[in-house]
Amino acid sequence: MASGLGDLRTVVISVGNELLFGSTVDTNSAWLGRELAALGLPVSRRYTVRDDADEIRAAVAAGMSCSELVLVTGGLGPTHDDITRGTVSEMLGLPLKVDPGRLLQLQERFRQRGYDVLPEANRSQAEIPEGACVLDNPLGTAPGLAMESDGVLLVLLPGVPREMRAIFGGDLGALLRDRFSGRLAPVVHRMLHTTGVPESKLAEVIRAAFPDPAAYLGDGMSMAFLPDLRGVDLRLSVAHASAGEAESALNRAESALAPLVAPWRFDSESGDLAEAVLVALRRGRNTLAVAESCTAGIVSTRLTEHAGSSDVFVGGVVAYSNGVKQALLGVTTVALESGGAVSEVVAQQMALGVREAVGADVGVAITGIAGPGGGSQEKPIGTVWLAVSTDGGVRTECVLFTGDREAVRERAAQAALSLVLASVGHPSSRH
Amino acid sequence: MASGLGDLRTVVISVGNELLFGSTVDTNSAWLGRELAALGLPVSRRYTVRDDADEIRAAVAAGMSCSELVLVTGGLGPTHDDITRGTVSEMLGLPLKVDPGRLLQLQERFRQRGYDVLPEANRSQAEIPEGACVLDNPLGTAPGLAMESDGVLLVLLPGVPREMRAIFGGDLGALLRDRFSGRLAPVVHRMLHTTGVPESKLAEVIRAAFPDPAAYLGDGMSMAFLPDLRGVDLRLSVAHASAGEAESALNRAESALAPLVAPWRFDSESGDLAEAVLVALRRGRNTLAVAESCTAGIVSTRLTEHAGSSDVFVGGVVAYSNGVKQALLGVTTVALESGGAVSEVVAQQMALGVREAVGADVGVAITGIAGPGGGSQEKPIGTVWLAVSTDGGVRTECVLFTGDREAVRERAAQAALSLVLASVGHPSSRH
Repeated sequence: MASGLGDLRTVVISVGNELLFGSTVDTNSAWLGRELAALGLPVSRRYTVRDDADEIRAAVAAGMSCSELVLVTGGLGPTHDDITRGTVSEMLGLPLKVDPGRLLQLQERFRQRGYDVLPEANRSQAEIPEGACVLDNPLGTAPGLAMESDGVLLVLLPGVPREMRAIFGGDLGALLRDRFSGRLAPVVHRMLHTTGVPESKLAEVIRAAFPDPAAYLGDGMSMAFLPDLRGVDLRLSVAHASAGEAESALNRAESALAPLVAPWRFDSESGDLAEAVLVALRRGRNTLAVAESCTAGIVSTRLTEHAGSSDVFVGGVVAYSNGVKQALLGVTTVALESGGAVSEVVAQQMALGVREAVGADVGVAITGIAGPGGGSQEKPIGTVWLAVSTDGGVRTECVLFTGDREAVRERAAQAALSLVLASVGHPSSRH
Repeated sequence: MASGLGDLRTVVISVGNELLFGSTVDTNSAWLGRELAALGLPVSRRYTVRDDADEIRAAVAAGMSCSELVLVTGGLGPTHDDITRGTVSEMLGLPLKVDPGRLLQLQERFRQRGYDVLPEANRSQAEIPEGACVLDNPLGTAPGLAMESDGVLLVLLPGVPREMRAIFGGDLGALLRDRFSGRLAPVVHRMLHTTGVPESKLAEVIRAAFPDPAAYLGDGMSMAFLPDLRGVDLRLSVAHASAGEAESALNRAESALAPLVAPWRFDSESGDLAEAVLVALRRGRNTLAVAESCTAGIVSTRLTEHAGSSDVFVGGVVAYSNGVKQALLGVTTVALESGGAVSEVVAQQMALGVREAVGADVGVAITGIAGPGGGSQEKPIGTVWLAVSTDGGVRTECVLFTGDREAVRERAAQAALSLVLASVGHPSSRH
């Protein structure tokens, strides 16, 4: 049945020499793949082509011949190699016309940036193919464009990831839901976030409890392990015509898995452990100060990525050199000389010191060896001491992280957030 | 001329549901793009298809019709959804035959892993299309396979990135150099890094000086604008039979562009402005301390991403709350009450304060409104005050950044690094 539920397929076309040259990794496509599947419009094919009119035409024609929805990303910028808009509008016989409203908007945007006149190069971004629907780009100068042709919806999006995502999250999502309404079988996901456990260990624990995945995954449900430097997310996915049925199936699977992953699980809307820490701090009416040596600002940066963090996060010290550890955190010469900068005592003094220096309820400290230099037989690269100081006392932890400099720093920051959550997350841990 | 130098084009086909579904970001393609371009076999098109025989056949046929080299990655594993080998061998009429040598090798490999018998699923990995050349995989059980058909070289590679890379670095690289010998024109790149200027402005400046790109781009040379939140890179690319010729052509283009981009240009091996700042600090034997409010650790994190930064970067203060600005940086109540936390005086006091608190030669401070809350008519979201304090005095700058919270923070951090570079980069700026 050509118009049945769940038969919708999407073709994505990525335009850009830099993608084929490999100077840019195409993260847009994976993001679009997830979002489109969630909407019920799974991607069936992807073409990546050069900034070349013949190549773009061939890919668009191929996409339109096998799909009802073709998304093209890239090539909407203001420079000479951005030719997607012109090529597609010519191909579909929709002449480009300057949109007066768009032009005013662009002029205003550039005035705010301090330009008296709109650069000539940006004028082309006010040109709209006749009859096209303009999709607002809240983060840039190139709007998205949607056109109907031969029963196919063709959408042009800028290649800049954050702009593409913003358009998808706004006008485009609404348009797709409306255009394909009644025919979408959305894939519904449920995420279980974990940290501090390797993917292989998680898989083993689950396999030991359920040798047959059918015992916890219902009909048509799949589970994916999504690991990164911060942890492993378990993603349960199921396509259903009814959201209620999908919810019940996901609830059953989550109930079966919950006791197995409990030791490493955290809850967070965004999937970011820093957000879970902020929520826990707010709940306990605690403020937090951070002292970072090897992570040098990663923990503070992550906490402040979330708007409104200033109600519980006050700041802290990047104590990269021993001099700063002593001058601002009161770390003692004795501690530095006896155990070295990467030691339990120094971590304790840093956590206590930052808490006192800024008058916060909780202080967390990280000191470690991120590499590539600085390792020794006794303290190899990846050795990190963590400490959390509260009214209840100081809690410390030593971890040996694997990986390169970037991996050690990311993992150490994540472990520090974990230790804060463990220290303030449960009322019983505060005396 | 069909067999001339530089006319070689490659088609890459990535096979895998997880790529289209978006659970995996396709990093293989970017890596292959770089390696193939460097070899002189630039990728002209990329197809991404499902683990489906019809889809694989259609993509291989399309690739073979427009190219002399088709690389297929993915679908060579031992599980039921790995169908690339079987589909392609059937399509080309090359029956699969068990290769006795491969079979022994596989059995040996599994014995080493502690298996008495080769799992049935892995037996298929000893099957080779008749006449195919086996490309050794030193890191896994699926070898690469190379086949000639209708004048096209078709290569199958496993999708696991490290295995794919190992095969390319070994047998496949040698095979390609040999097969296309005398016709390879490797592509050489040159990067010009800029910051603090929008892409459209750069394009306009260059167009104003050279209405005809041929005036600065030599024969066969192309230039791409690669913008992100931190700045715009200009990438010059040229394919040449001789590396010396390529260098001369790139030198000529760079000389023509250099005076135009000079106001915004910086030099850095990695392309990161933070690295340029570290180099300038080292050259002037200066140490740096950082006081961050709205960026809350981004500048410190970026500086310390580079190993060895501890010789010039000492640390600093994340002064998110006013209390921390006062307690650790000596910001005065008068300054906070008269101009507010986002003001020139507070930025000056922060820069001077952090420099004195930790005894550094240079202090840099950032205080601003990242949003989404906190903006006002007088100080809209995106308003950021920057200050750099050196022996020569304090230099300040106020910038109104566009974009969301993430963009304002990234751009403010980049502008702070720029101001440090301007303050210490030229010996004349130090008294």
